[in-house]
Amino acid sequence: MNAAAMVKTSLDMVKNGLISKPQALLRINPEILEQLLHPQLAPNQSQHPLAQGLPASPGAASGKCVFDADMAVRLAKNGEQIILLRAETKPEDIHGFFAAQGILTSRGGKTSHAAVVARGMGKACVAGAEDIKIDVKARLAIVGDIHIKEGDLITIDGSNGNIYLGKLETVAAVFSNELKTLLKWADEIAHLKVYANVDTPETARLALSYGAKGIGLCRTERMFNAAERLPLVVEMILANDQAQRETALAKLFPIQRDDFLELFIAMSPYPVTVRLLDPPMHEFLPDQQQLLEEIEALKHYLTMVKGQRVTLETLGPHSDLPSPFNRLNEDAISEAIAKKKMMLKKVLELYEVNPMLGHRGVRLGMSYPEIYSMQIRSILEAAALCIKQKITVTPEIMVPQVITAQELKQVKQMVEQIRLEVEGQYRIKLNFKFGTMVETVRACTRADHLAEIAEFFSFGTNDLTQATFSFSREDAENKFLPLYEESGLLEDNPFETLDIQGVGKLMEMAVGLGREKRPDLKIGICGEHGGHPLSIQFCQSIGLDYVSCSAPRIPIARLAAAQAILLTDVTLC
Amino acid sequence: MNAAAMVKTSLDMVKNGLISKPQALLRINPEILEQLLHPQLAPNQSQHPLAQGLPASPGAASGKCVFDADMAVRLAKNGEQIILLRAETKPEDIHGFFAAQGILTSRGGKTSHAAVVARGMGKACVAGAEDIKIDVKARLAIVGDIHIKEGDLITIDGSNGNIYLGKLETVAAVFSNELKTLLKWADEIAHLKVYANVDTPETARLALSYGAKGIGLCRTERMFNAAERLPLVVEMILANDQAQRETALAKLFPIQRDDFLELFIAMSPYPVTVRLLDPPMHEFLPDQQQLLEEIEALKHYLTMVKGQRVTLETLGPHSDLPSPFNRLNEDAISEAIAKKKMMLKKVLELYEVNPMLGHRGVRLGMSYPEIYSMQIRSILEAAALCIKQKITVTPEIMVPQVITAQELKQVKQMVEQIRLEVEGQYRIKLNFKFGTMVETVRACTRADHLAEIAEFFSFGTNDLTQATFSFSREDAENKFLPLYEESGLLEDNPFETLDIQGVGKLMEMAVGLGREKRPDLKIGICGEHGGHPLSIQFCQSIGLDYVSCSAPRIPIARLAAAQAILLTDVTLC
Repeated sequence: MNAAAMVKTSLDMVKNGLISKPQALLRINPEILEQLLHPQLAPNQSQHPLAQGLPASPGAASGKCVFDADMAVRLAKNGEQIILLRAETKPEDIHGFFAAQGILTSRGGKTSHAAVVARGMGKACVAGAEDIKIDVKARLAIVGDIHIKEGDLITIDGSNGNIYLGKLETVAAVFSNELKTLLKWADEIAHLKVYANVDTPETARLALSYGAKGIGLCRTERMFNAAERLPLVVEMILANDQAQRETALAKLFPIQRDDFLELFIAMSPYPVTVRLLDPPMHEFLPDQQQLLEEIEALKHYLTMVKGQRVTLETLGPHSDLPSPFNRLNEDAISEAIAKKKMMLKKVLELYEVNPMLGHRGVRLGMSYPEIYSMQIRSILEAAALCIKQKITVTPEIMVPQVITAQELKQVKQMVEQIRLEVEGQYRIKLNFKFGTMVETVRACTRADHLAEIAEFFSFGTNDLTQATFSFSREDAENKFLPLYEESGLLEDNPFETLDIQGVGKLMEMAVGLGREKRPDLKIGICGEHGGHPLSIQFCQSIGLDYVSCSAPRIPIARLAAAQAILLTDVTLC
Repeated sequence: MNAAAMVKTSLDMVKNGLISKPQALLRINPEILEQLLHPQLAPNQSQHPLAQGLPASPGAASGKCVFDADMAVRLAKNGEQIILLRAETKPEDIHGFFAAQGILTSRGGKTSHAAVVARGMGKACVAGAEDIKIDVKARLAIVGDIHIKEGDLITIDGSNGNIYLGKLETVAAVFSNELKTLLKWADEIAHLKVYANVDTPETARLALSYGAKGIGLCRTERMFNAAERLPLVVEMILANDQAQRETALAKLFPIQRDDFLELFIAMSPYPVTVRLLDPPMHEFLPDQQQLLEEIEALKHYLTMVKGQRVTLETLGPHSDLPSPFNRLNEDAISEAIAKKKMMLKKVLELYEVNPMLGHRGVRLGMSYPEIYSMQIRSILEAAALCIKQKITVTPEIMVPQVITAQELKQVKQMVEQIRLEVEGQYRIKLNFKFGTMVETVRACTRADHLAEIAEFFSFGTNDLTQATFSFSREDAENKFLPLYEESGLLEDNPFETLDIQGVGKLMEMAVGLGREKRPDLKIGICGEHGGHPLSIQFCQSIGLDYVSCSAPRIPIARLAAAQAILLTDVTLC
């Protein structure tokens, strides 16, 4: 029976008095709801797939092939359906994700940038389709002897990784009234609240439509990555001293404040948990190899420009070159070269052997307090503006990568000082929470001390799993984790199913120590496990207050949260 | 009072009945013994240092500047005193360390390859002296306008990082009879045994002379790195399948067996704990950049050779080029290029985003069981050869990076099968222990399950600290750890002083769980903390059996082990 039929018969059986509501809820495997929440290929289509990649984000999508994000935006404006094809995606492609119906990459796995971002947005994605050679310059994708040109139609199925030539028929996602009814019953039973991991007003509205009761993780770095802001972020990173950095931050401030304002308004009256900047700074800069190539290309063009008059056409595509270059002005090119060289110097300076364990999270906030200060002010001023407009807001400020209460104390001091300033300036009283991610092992062992300062904990089980296993997720999933699963060394991939014996033990320790010090401590989880039924059951068993997951998994989490109660308390059935 | 005087007066006071032996032991700060165990600059020399680097391994040394390891070996054979100067050192420079009195680098910190290896050998090292520009091709070190040529005399002081022109007078290290007496008293009181982290017979003999009661960590990768073996290791890594890999391993086998044989004989009758291969395979290959440059250079030479007759002289120094090249044979050069290209392909294949958390330790043993199999057979055959010669041996086989009992079970099965074969072949009974490193967080949470299989635990607190803090040591110490210490966010550098509140808590958990399952479980520590007095005190308090540290720290650890008892049991004083 497919998911839609399963939901419908369950409702009918309750209506006819054959089963109770709890029995109806227990009949359905939460994972099958995924079918209802993404477009699917229509059944009975006989076409053979052209190639296959990894099923990186569920759902089917058809559209015209496009080879870069700018072109995707241009065509989408004309109402075209788009599939964005890239060897791999990077933060600067983000506008292309918004414009496209689906994303297809030839490199990278289920945790590649393309996969993670697409899942968060609920867009179809097939990743790592290695049989496809993507030639951006020639605007061609090549599979064997088949050449796919820009504008040709293709269809991808992110649920199984298949790629088809042409446009296949799809069945739209329907968040049916039957499913809504079922999930309303689930909410009546569940103790765990379901929040969403989102960072834009659009996905916030999607999350609300799926029944989210708050935002458990708003990643501010996503806001930094938007195309028009990245240059400001780069300016901030290239700053030579605090004064220069503050100048760049002053330009980012109104943008970030308005981001939060929009998000708070969209989510009102629910809580919005904002994580202060987390990734290492080098993630916002191009990589060394790319910069070296760009500098070489610019030097080559400079020679050409100096030696003879050239037209734009003789140069070929150069969309990745800085805009001053388009004027073919020698000085502008030289300036662009100088800037790229400065960037390269910074990239080398910021290089880390193990970036996962490097200069990131609150460590950035300690080294560059002006960055956290700008973000805190943005959050509190956005809250103040809401209050002025009589919009109820409940922001929660969350600090990442904490290892010691001292870090939290320093950030808390900044927060308190800025709170006083904003309250004075807007003549209002702010109401918000201050808390911490628990995503390092040491945060678990020191949870009692953290709870003296933090009003809430949010488990970052992605990073906590990496630290507990000493696994780097990207490396593990590409290198040895498949062997570990096949040969029974590990029962499951711990990045998909929460490892109760290791990571779970640390979480229990943290919950115990934290509530010992602060009995009303609010505790949730915002790692990917927050959307997986078995992990949700564990979160219920150790007494968490909420789980937070990507928007399209919210219905699954709501059903799983009810089942977590029903499975332990049979008297309810 | 200097260390020698302090030791002497303590002994005199005991002799004269003024204080008790325990009081004598408590009078002396173990750290000051370092002065006695390394050569020092003679006092009252007024020369100003030419430059300064980081004090990376204590002791003073003078000698002729030499810019590569081969040259160091050549001059050392003529009885010259050598200081090896490199921008940074790599595993393939190891023979240069043996040949030199001291090592000086212009890049890298206290945990750089140069620093760690020099400390292990007890050689003086100044690292990261950034004011010195080292030009290997020109055989020059340049500081400002001073040019130091190969063969010029310099002096380095690894205790404070100073670098001097010329030969300064030094005072030799003296492991005096007074100190030996004092440490004999210490051993009578201490519960903790002191083992050494060593991997060569020479350092094993040094460790014994300092009073080591066993080897707590023999790193087999050090044996892989010796210049004449590295090509065999590379052949093993480049193998395309298991058969090819086994062919390469068969060549390594007798070498590794003889290594263990020598070490066992040197340490008899004490235990020798051998860690199976730990580092990721790419550590044995040159890096991408280096290979690209070498390929370019070879191509260039090939063009030259094809175009005209050239003599060796026109090519300049090329000691890093493969030996066939020296014959200037086109085919040989082409072959060398092809081999380098294969290596480059492998390097790219093995690339990891976070190597610290990557394909290493027992994960290698699971992916390539033939490597561990070869190592286990080497250990057991070496033990069998000792038994045949009536030499008492007690090898202990140790598995690194374990996260689950399943991994240990698989390695144990290999060990048991090889044991049967070796016992049959040599007609003897082997006597050895099988155990595990406890260096991942998950090993601590699953210690009861590990103790079902492991007969001993050895805490790898370097890696455990990295995982607990989510700190990559290299990145942390270069980027944010200085700020954390200065501003009081952390009281100490957790890589120097064991973090009792985080790492210590996990260790206590592991000791408790492990002994619950196996009361006679032998437990030790072989991370760098094993040689630090405060950490030794903690190890005593949680009931460890031994601490293992680099040879030159053994006297310090012996005194600290006695103080750990005296400080908690005042009735002894």
